[in-house]
Amino acid sequence: MQGDGAGALAVRLRVIGFASDFGTRDPYVGICHAVIARIGLALRVIDLGHEIPPGDIRGGAALVAQAAPFLPAAPVLLAVVDPGVGTDRAGLVVRTGADALLVGPDNGLLPWAAGALGGAAAAYAIENRALMLEPRSHTFHGRDVFAPVAARLALGLRPAEVGPPLPVEHLARLPDPVVVVTPGRLTAEILMVDRYGNLQTAARLEQLTAAVGEGGSAAEDGSLPGAADDRVLTVEAGDNALAARLGTTYGSVPPGEAVVYLDSAGLVAVARNGADAATALRVGAGDQIMISG
Amino acid sequence: MQGDGAGALAVRLRVIGFASDFGTRDPYVGICHAVIARIGLALRVIDLGHEIPPGDIRGGAALVAQAAPFLPAAPVLLAVVDPGVGTDRAGLVVRTGADALLVGPDNGLLPWAAGALGGAAAAYAIENRALMLEPRSHTFHGRDVFAPVAARLALGLRPAEVGPPLPVEHLARLPDPVVVVTPGRLTAEILMVDRYGNLQTAARLEQLTAAVGEGGSAAEDGSLPGAADDRVLTVEAGDNALAARLGTTYGSVPPGEAVVYLDSAGLVAVARNGADAATALRVGAGDQIMISG
Amino acid sequence: MQGDGAGALAVRLRVIGFASDFGTRDPYVGICHAVIARIGLALRVIDLGHEIPPGDIRGGAALVAQAAPFLPAAPVLLAVVDPGVGTDRAGLVVRTGADALLVGPDNGLLPWAAGALGGAAAAYAIENRALMLEPRSHTFHGRDVFAPVAARLALGLRPAEVGPPLPVEHLARLPDPVVVVTPGRLTAEILMVDRYGNLQTAARLEQLTAAVGEGGSAAEDGSLPGAADDRVLTVEAGDNALAARLGTTYGSVPPGEAVVYLDSAGLVAVARNGADAATALRVGAGDQIMISG
Repeated sequence: MQGDGAGALAVRLRVIGFASDFGTRDPYVGICHAVIARIGLALRVIDLGHEIPPGDIRGGAALVAQAAPFLPAAPVLLAVVDPGVGTDRAGLVVRTGADALLVGPDNGLLPWAAGALGGAAAAYAIENRALMLEPRSHTFHGRDVFAPVAARLALGLRPAEVGPPLPVEHLARLPDPVVVVTPGRLTAEILMVDRYGNLQTAARLEQLTAAVGEGGSAAEDGSLPGAADDRVLTVEAGDNALAARLGTTYGSVPPGEAVVYLDSAGLVAVARNGADAATALRVGAGDQIMISG
Repeated sequence: MQGDGAGALAVRLRVIGFASDFGTRDPYVGICHAVIARIGLALRVIDLGHEIPPGDIRGGAALVAQAAPFLPAAPVLLAVVDPGVGTDRAGLVVRTGADALLVGPDNGLLPWAAGALGGAAAAYAIENRALMLEPRSHTFHGRDVFAPVAARLALGLRPAEVGPPLPVEHLARLPDPVVVVTPGRLTAEILMVDRYGNLQTAARLEQLTAAVGEGGSAAEDGSLPGAADDRVLTVEAGDNALAARLGTTYGSVPPGEAVVYLDSAGLVAVARNGADAATALRVGAGDQIMISG
Repeated sequence: MQGDGAGALAVRLRVIGFASDFGTRDPYVGICHAVIARIGLALRVIDLGHEIPPGDIRGGAALVAQAAPFLPAAPVLLAVVDPGVGTDRAGLVVRTGADALLVGPDNGLLPWAAGALGGAAAAYAIENRALMLEPRSHTFHGRDVFAPVAARLALGLRPAEVGPPLPVEHLARLPDPVVVVTPGRLTAEILMVDRYGNLQTAARLEQLTAAVGEGGSAAEDGSLPGAADDRVLTVEAGDNALAARLGTTYGSVPPGEAVVYLDSAGLVAVARNGADAATALRVGAGDQIMISG
């Protein structure tokens, strides 16, 4: 449409990454896909996950931030975990330093993803009714507000056309995840527990090293300092504890045993080889674990 | 774009909306997608939901009817909840007043969706073996009959080519959902319970108003009459009851409290703010609730 | 279509079928889709199922082998169930007699699918670091190794470019499923239990016939020999048993009763009409059942 033929057009479309707490049992995700296709049949949507626990803004923020950097360049990121839908919380478009456009509610869901995509550079409150489905419901802004705006942005709409600018420092923000380093002990909040029962904490390698390391640094291949040694660490949560070794992957330890490693997001994690670490420690996202040794 | 070659072709392809009770654990949904792609690589399929409870025709009919109106114009709607697969129940193509083409078994699954897409205008029994996969199984007509027919219709096949016409008044129909209005009380069947535990009933605003309203009508913004007042309603199911207020959204009431509102499908619904109304009332789809006050 | 521009290109892209044990709760599947889209925006991915039980190589092999033959011709099949990720198990590309390219770990996951796609013709160990994401994690080769390689193969990369050839007879293989035929009794391993509770065994029609048949052969329409007779079979697993009849589909027997039939993959299966056979027999994939009569 904008010069010469379908090729040129396709090149300019932004891919839409889409995450929500809508679940896959109900028709909500499909309806949002349908709304986007109605607005632009050529638009490409990549589902990043829709099983965020209902209303879990923090879990959603962690998931979206982790997936976002792998999207094609300059994506639209449509994220909806919105327990305050229909109240006076704003709807947002956030433009980042990497030219990503994030769309979702102003409740803390988006800033971590914005940080992972170059940092929030500008934000706008979605107020332009011409972009919304009518009648607009009070309980499904994913369908009536966020999906249509995401589709139009993917087709080339400038963010400023959705509504008035908001200072990025005024956006709702979640408390930072807890990470506390003391001599011999790392205390870290769990960001995600995956289906394998692996625990991802908010701690980075240097924090683990500062707490329990021996001054080493990660080898070029991403393995942990001391990964080859035999030292036993203790991973605790409340009254439950696991003995663990440093390693690079599940198979670094015998079946059933626990390993502390850097996971695929570059964060300190705990797993059991072929078994479930979260169940053994009785923990979930938002809980804290202590690693000592 | 509309004169020559692939562009012109793409414009004429129908989008396929696809819903089933196949679940996402088994390969059945993926196999149907593969079959459609084999027949037309350019075809676009939008999944509307595959976690309809196994064999739940009524739940499937409600889901499909709710999602269908949001599909791009003139869609093919492929819907499969088919406990009678391989028996003498017919396979159907239904053409609607809005030029949608519905494909699925003749067991009551399709008529509500047809109603949401302009009403059934014509129906055909799928009998043309040349359109089916061979060998045709007795237990997976989604793969062998319905998906191939949906794909060919999306590519331009005329519905009459699938087989002989059937009078639309002879199609299998589900009993209408129960809605009973008496002075001071609305009794309504639950159509869907979503993952948040929100209850969608089959009742419309005017029925709620006739039962418990004060003669008001919905404001232009979709809020319920009396949504601003303080009147307490009672929502009952068997021995369980919730006190509820009229509102427009979950946040209309304090956390944990119940609200009666018009949901995103325009139906009377019951939710608890940040909590699960269905579990509190111990109800599911197909049960009835009473709203009084 | 094969002369000029985008049309010619589209013809040459391979479709990617994708199955894993990543689940849909975590962002892993979406991240792999994102990685593929980054490498080739026009690539088409068909999800074949991501709810393979965590680490269940055998269940994954059965699912992938069953879905693969329905993909468009010459597909790339990306399959990841990889409990040994990051250890010295190789990553594979397997080329089959039907020009399919299979990508995944060398742990037994791929050979059954290769058999369903014309048989393994050549295999290569993925060692070419230029094809992988950097930094390459030790725990998510789906993202860092297999998805990028699958994307490049779909775009036209020759398999030999991924790394050195491996003799196909050296690939890791799972033990064959157990099927034992004795007079009056068929003992067969369960390959899959689907969400309806239907049991798919590894046995073929001729094995059932040899054990309990009367010398008949399957009719042209796929019905079992004896499907019209009244003979009662016994299906046993441990201390549990069901009386069953031969039939062609669920509706061949009254509601709640059991039927032995050839399923949509052409394998001997056991179901209950509108009910769950697996729960009644307390069995799952990998268990064995005995059919006698």
